[in-house]
Order: sequence, then C-alpha cells, then structure tokens
Amino acid sequence: MTQINQNFCRLPGSYLFSEIGRRVSAYSQENPGAELIRLGIGDVTQPLAPAVTQAMTRAVAEMGTQEGFRGYGPEQGYDFLRQAIARHDYQARGVEIDPEEIFVSDGAKSDCGNIGDLFGPDNIVAVCDPVYPVYVDSNAMAGRAGHYDPQTGRWDRLVYLPCTQQTGFVPELPKGRADMVYLCFPNNPTGAMATREQLKAWVDWANERGSVLLYDSAYEAFISQPELPHSIFEIEGARTCAIEFRSFSKTAGFTGNRCAYTVVPRQLEREGVGLNGLWNRRQTTKFNGVPYVVQRGAEAVYTPEGQAQVRQTIAYYQRNAQLLREGLGQAGLAVSGGVNAPYLWIKTPEGMGSWDFFDLLLRQAHVVTTPGVGFGPSGEGYIRITAFGQAEQAAQAVERIQSVLG
Amino acid sequence: MTQINQNFCRLPGSYLFSEIGRRVSAYSQENPGAELIRLGIGDVTQPLAPAVTQAMTRAVAEMGTQEGFRGYGPEQGYDFLRQAIARHDYQARGVEIDPEEIFVSDGAKSDCGNIGDLFGPDNIVAVCDPVYPVYVDSNAMAGRAGHYDPQTGRWDRLVYLPCTQQTGFVPELPKGRADMVYLCFPNNPTGAMATREQLKAWVDWANERGSVLLYDSAYEAFISQPELPHSIFEIEGARTCAIEFRSFSKTAGFTGNRCAYTVVPRQLEREGVGLNGLWNRRQTTKFNGVPYVVQRGAEAVYTPEGQAQVRQTIAYYQRNAQLLREGLGQAGLAVSGGVNAPYLWIKTPEGMGSWDFFDLLLRQAHVVTTPGVGFGPSGEGYIRITAFGQAEQAAQAVERIQSVLG
Repeated sequence: MTQINQNFCRLPGSYLFSEIGRRVSAYSQENPGAELIRLGIGDVTQPLAPAVTQAMTRAVAEMGTQEGFRGYGPEQGYDFLRQAIARHDYQARGVEIDPEEIFVSDGAKSDCGNIGDLFGPDNIVAVCDPVYPVYVDSNAMAGRAGHYDPQTGRWDRLVYLPCTQQTGFVPELPKGRADMVYLCFPNNPTGAMATREQLKAWVDWANERGSVLLYDSAYEAFISQPELPHSIFEIEGARTCAIEFRSFSKTAGFTGNRCAYTVVPRQLEREGVGLNGLWNRRQTTKFNGVPYVVQRGAEAVYTPEGQAQVRQTIAYYQRNAQLLREGLGQAGLAVSGGVNAPYLWIKTPEGMGSWDFFDLLLRQAHVVTTPGVGFGPSGEGYIRITAFGQAEQAAQAVERIQSVLG
Repeated sequence: MTQINQNFCRLPGSYLFSEIGRRVSAYSQENPGAELIRLGIGDVTQPLAPAVTQAMTRAVAEMGTQEGFRGYGPEQGYDFLRQAIARHDYQARGVEIDPEEIFVSDGAKSDCGNIGDLFGPDNIVAVCDPVYPVYVDSNAMAGRAGHYDPQTGRWDRLVYLPCTQQTGFVPELPKGRADMVYLCFPNNPTGAMATREQLKAWVDWANERGSVLLYDSAYEAFISQPELPHSIFEIEGARTCAIEFRSFSKTAGFTGNRCAYTVVPRQLEREGVGLNGLWNRRQTTKFNGVPYVVQRGAEAVYTPEGQAQVRQTIAYYQRNAQLLREGLGQAGLAVSGGVNAPYLWIKTPEGMGSWDFFDLLLRQAHVVTTPGVGFGPSGEGYIRITAFGQAEQAAQAVERIQSVLG
C-alpha cells in the first residue's frame, strides 16, 4: 500500500484568502449595489511594458520559423538573461555576482518552496511572524515544522521571530538555534525594510553559527530610500551564508508572465558541499527552464526603454502607496510600510481584532483588505493594504475610509 | 550549522549527456571537417505551429493593454485550457476526465520530479530498466532509492523491472512489493508501447495491492496503431490507482515553450486521503501557474487549424522514424521502437558495448547517438536514436550507417 506524505495531513486549511472570498461574496450577494474596491491581494494591475511585449512578440515570431525555433533551453536560464541580471541588478550596484550564480526560474514562490529540497529534515527553521505563508507551509510539507497547534496558530518545531511595533517590524536575532532563516525585505506583509546595519548583524550571526539566510527580495524595486540595500549581497560576508530570491513579478508586472531568479553564491558551503552545485542538480533534475519567449521579455526589462517604462509603473504604485499612507494617517490610523514597499500595515483602531476591522471596512467603506492575523499571530490587530490597484480606486478608498472613521 | 540533504551526496554525476558532449567535441576538434548528424538528444526541431504563434501573439498584445492584462492566474491552469484538454484529450476518446482533475504545469519533468512530495519516504519505488533518469534521481533526492552501487549501476532500495528483448521491452509485474511504479508508454528510451491487455494487468495489480502507477504518456501523439491506448485512463480501474503525466513538448513542439499537465483522478485515495487534494495543495503552495501567453498557445493546439498543423509535424517525425527504422534494418541492425514512438532502440552488432558502437558511429558515420547503457544496466548492448531531426539528415544518417556497416 502506498503511503502518503503524512506531513500534508498536518497542514491546516489555507483559510485566509478563501475566507476573505467567502465574506466578500456573501456581502456582495446581500448588497448587489455595493461597488467594492479590492486592496487585499498582492497582484499587479498595470499592463506589461511596451519594451517587454515587443520583445515577446519578436520571440514568438522566431519560434514560428525554422531558423529561429528554440527547443529545450538551459535549465538555469539563457546566458543572455543571466548576464543581463548580473550586470544590471548586481554589478551596477557594485555587487560581484557571476551569471553562473544566477538560476532563472518560473517564480520566487516556486524557488522559496523548492529550496527546501537541498536541506536535511533536522534543521531548525526560523520565520518572521507575521510571515508569507509559503515559507511555513513548504517546510511543514517537508516535516521540518513539526505539529500545528490551532490554538496558538503555531508549529512546534518552528522558531518564530516576532515583528512588532516594538521591533520596528524587523526581527531580532534568535536567542537559540536556527539553521535556516527566512527573511523578506522589503517585507510582505508589513512593508518594513531592514537597514544595512540590521542585515549586517544577521549576516554576522549566520556566519558565526553556520546558518543559512533565505533572503526574499521580490519587492526590492519599491525601495525609495537610497541608503537601503537592495540585495543581501550588498552586505559584507553574505556570500558565505545567504541565498537570494528575486522576481520580475512586482518589478516588471510579470505575475502572469512567470519569471524570477535565485542567486546561490559559489562560496556558500555547508558540511563541505557547495549549495550552488546542489541547486544546479535540483533544477536540472526537477525543472526544465523558463519559456524562451518569457526570457526575452525579461531581458527587455533591462533595455533603456524597458527600464524607463517599468520605473514609471513602479512610480505609479508608489504614488498610490503615498496617497494611502497619508490619507489613512489623516483618518487617524497608525500606518507603517508603504515607503519602501507596496504594502501598508495598518493598526486597527481601538484594539479591534483584524477580522472585525476587515468586516467594518468591507461593510461600511466597501474596501477589501487582508486581516493581518492571517499572516501569523503577531499580525493580530493589523490589516494589510496593497498599493497595486488603480490610482482612482486608491483615492476613493481613502475618501471612504476617512468618512467611515471621521 | 545547517545540514544539507545528504541524499544529494549519494547521487552519481549525471555523466551521460556530458560524456557524449565530451566525446563529440574531442572528435570534432581532431576532425574539424566532419559534418556531424545529431540524433542523440530527444528535442524537437520543427517550429511552433502558426495557430500557436498567432494565439501567443494575440495574448502578448492583450498583456500590454489595461483591459487585457492578466496577473496571477489559477495555479492549476486557466479554465479555458483545462476544459480544452478534458474535451479533446479525454472525452473525445471516451474517457471521462473532469477539468478539475487536470493540473496544468511547466513540464512533465517538473511534475514527475515533484510528484514525490505527496508520498512518504518508506514507499518502495519500482522503475523500468532502462529508464528516463528523472524518476530515479528525484526519488534518490527524497531518500527513497537508498544507496547507489557504481559497480552495478543500481540503487539498493529501488525495484528494477528489466525491459529486454525477451519481455518485448515491456516490464513484467513485480514479484515483490512495489508501492510507486513509474511506467512510460510510448517508452523513452526503447520506443516500446504496452498493449491494452498489458496495461490492464498493471492496473489490476496496482488496485489489488494499493500501489500507485505514475504513468508518463508524454509521447502519446506518436502512437500510430489505432488499437493502442493513449491514456492509462482508457483502462478500466485506472481512476483508483494511476496518475498520468502529459506534455505539449513532443505533441506540439513546446520543449522551449514549457507547458504540460498532470491528471490526478478524484477517486485516487491512499490511507484515506485523496491525492487530487494533496497535489492541489502542493501546487498552490510551491507553484504559481504557467504564463498566460503560453496557456493561450496550448489552447490553440486544440483548434481545427492547430490540430491539423501539429499532426503534420508529428507525421514529419513519424516519416523520419520509418525511414530510420527501415534503413537501419536494411543495414543489418535489429531495430525496435519507432512505430508508436519517436525513439528507435537499436541492438549493437556482434555484441558490441553501447559506448563502443556509439564511438564507431561517431567516428565512421559521423552520427551522434545515445548509448543505451546510459539509461540503465539493461540498456547495455543498445543505442537510442531519435526521429526528431530534419528529414534530410535522417536520410543521410541512414546512408552513412549503411555504408559503414555494409
């Protein structure tokens, strides 16, 4: 009899977005006239840049000709894209990353989930609280999370690093053992950003202990303060302790186009084994590369026109973030995030629960948000709002919330 | 200190294609005038169908507009594609498969590799010998293969099912326990196809024991004999014991376009848990769907024009296969496969070793093949030739081999 992976049975349902969906659709059915503004889900809304669609259209045409057709590409990504990434995202910021340290993939979610393949089952995993659920669930599937306690919302083998107002929403170094630490800056869901000094402390800590930092910088394009690092590899010592996940999803609106990359430095070794080689073996065995057409689209992001166009779209979302930040602050709410990130993390008024405030905004302002407690126990008493919507809707949401709370 | 997954350290190097590359490039350097014909690697060579490139071009244009832009799609694939697959690949053949049983993905290689996530570490895995290496390596990474013996080329926890001339290159039912069995028909590398009766015996065997069949039918479009089943789900009882992997790679030349799908029937349960739900949870946690543009391309394969065009390309490769089959037979070689598959499995003459015959064909006929022993010990004494090349090259390869062996 085939045995299933029992770790799957320990996973609680992924209730957050389905519960949001349930409440929203129940409310819509009762109030068919209500025009809802959806600021809940972290998905982009602006079209692909013309430089990207032009490059993709050319690549599709190539694939239709005998001379231009390409079959299997390298699992790690085409050289033209790995080189463009190395040059523009790293070398241009003074960071030496070699194209062979870059693995192009179909998404940061896939890579964050699959990276666990490289690590043994006995490692202690640390995650921030609140946290992007993929880090937790993928480790639970691999048996590293232990058992889930529905009372506390926590797994008994995970180390939770609270990110609260007291810590500026940046985690403090763990007191005990932690072998694999997931860090995400700019942060989803809190919108917080770590300083160079804070990241240096993490890198030193990891190098001293031989831990590995799994650094998710999918939102780096939203960093607006020039002194902040865009990559963990801007921090001295990171090449011996960190893996970085990056994505074109939020940088260039690729959520429906699927392209990302993961950087595994050659110097990163554990138990005498290089992790670059392990990831290469994992990817060549269980992955077959990203569509040629999509890689040409990603390459076009780095052309002068592509850069100008995607920066314009980022600026559009950043203006939304600023408008929401200021407007909701004027409504009397304590708002953090939204300066170096597309996410705003908003304290509920008068100690309300996350779901209660969610319901209040849904029913009275017709604005859909995400309850912070859905990202972990320390998210209780917060909601997350995204800046990825249309500008008019962001402005309207502010007005409505101001009038509800005013 | 972070511990790595020690199972990776037990993997032998993936020498096959790198060793082929080494020998080919050494020969080319010594003989710069030699015009090599490459019939080694199983990659398509004909361009994408016009119906596919037209659909992709339209989808790229949509993605560049405010109204047409699509962000995250469903992880399981868009409904338009799941429905087209269910209708054309299953219901048209009288097989009831529901769109919700179909999971669109970036490749059969990814799915064959990742499916192991659903199963416990103690399952006994059976594979054919010779075999597509992904089944073996992905299980080795998960610790289910045990230890590798370089002397025998075998892992000590895997059950090997020899596929030899005596068995008609179709495996016999295992005598002992086997919980997860990888079957691939039409077969890579031997080009063999199982009959309906043979597959029925496997399905009955699996249902009796509660085993799971992992059925790879990536090459089903090459089946030419009408009585043969294209899907394991054409066999009564398969819905309670089988998962099927399919791909647009060889059906529609998508190796560089990356689209495939996996069918997990709702009735398939083990230990009281439905595998459809487990795979859904795995994919929604560790995968984020296939590019919209690519899914529109795959949908176009099912239009009347798309069907006519991809069938024309399949027929082109089938003519290559027939030409190689007949020509190499006339050269005195014992050839199998090539009738219902794009692969020919050729016995070396006079008991030569696989690598010796590979070298002979490289040096004397300037034809690159794949040594059968690279797919497993029972492949010794064989080479694999693919029919995916250009027609002129296939004809020329036949002439050259005939003149070398004549």
